[in-house]
Amino acid sequence: MSRLNSFIRRVTAQRDCLNHAAELVQGRSGSVLELGLGNGRTYDHMRSLFDPDLIYVFDRHVKAHPECIPDDTHMIVGDFMQTVPGASERVPEPAIMVHCDIGSGDKAASVSLAEKLGAHLPKLLAKGAVIVSDQPFDVEGWEPLPLPGGVAEGRYHLYRQV
Amino acid sequence: MSRLNSFIRRVTAQRDCLNHAAELVQGRSGSVLELGLGNGRTYDHMRSLFDPDLIYVFDRHVKAHPECIPDDTHMIVGDFMQTVPGASERVPEPAIMVHCDIGSGDKAASVSLAEKLGAHLPKLLAKGAVIVSDQPFDVEGWEPLPLPGGVAEGRYHLYRQV
Repeated sequence: MSRLNSFIRRVTAQRDCLNHAAELVQGRSGSVLELGLGNGRTYDHMRSLFDPDLIYVFDRHVKAHPECIPDDTHMIVGDFMQTVPGASERVPEPAIMVHCDIGSGDKAASVSLAEKLGAHLPKLLAKGAVIVSDQPFDVEGWEPLPLPGGVAEGRYHLYRQV
Repeated sequence: MSRLNSFIRRVTAQRDCLNHAAELVQGRSGSVLELGLGNGRTYDHMRSLFDPDLIYVFDRHVKAHPECIPDDTHMIVGDFMQTVPGASERVPEPAIMVHCDIGSGDKAASVSLAEKLGAHLPKLLAKGAVIVSDQPFDVEGWEPLPLPGGVAEGRYHLYRQV
């Protein structure tokens, strides 16, 4: 498969999983977390699904499209392992959803980051929170959820905190 | 529409237009041009549609995925307006297809670039060549072609050199 086709499938899977997760937590109250702002495209999509005041975004630096940058209250800048472990000081309510857009070209680094984040994310999440991720997680207390139709197994990942 | 949805539509339109153009020129012989290597995703897709030895890529710099970089014969590095006007020295046969992936965030600059390229591209193209572009062109001798199904008017552009 060409890298263009593979890319289209990945971003479509991302969009479909975010939409699906938003349906799963519909009606619940709590914060929403985005790990990885990047160019701000998925943050902008999440703003279309949730009240922007509820969304807290983490990234090492802010390099997004100018229209897709959260205000200072909602943008937590720094290395994930510096910002996520103590994030409950910045995020007022347990999160009902988190999107982990944390993969890089370096597979070993992505696996290692997911492992480290898996130790800290559960305490930021409400019971029943949905985790949407570009990396697989193996976290006790997170059960895998079926992917929405059209998204192939392994292309994106969904879990629920039990 | 969120920027994620808009982006998915744009890259899908790009892929569908490239596939459609390849069908339109099927069986014809000639070079294929890619203006704008970027990360190499569309170049990789074009390699799945055409013999890679026929594809000549132009860009100011080479910042693509390592697996998506043409060899020195097929990669023409420099500002478009320095490389395209004299490209017939590097490209052995008139092109049967060109993909112009030339838009930047700066709309005025993109419009101006399309205008300048429109003065030089026709002499690199064979009669009947298909132009696929992210920018509209107004070139005498290029007739607009219908877009493939599912691609909204204006999202991508197709022309034929008469």
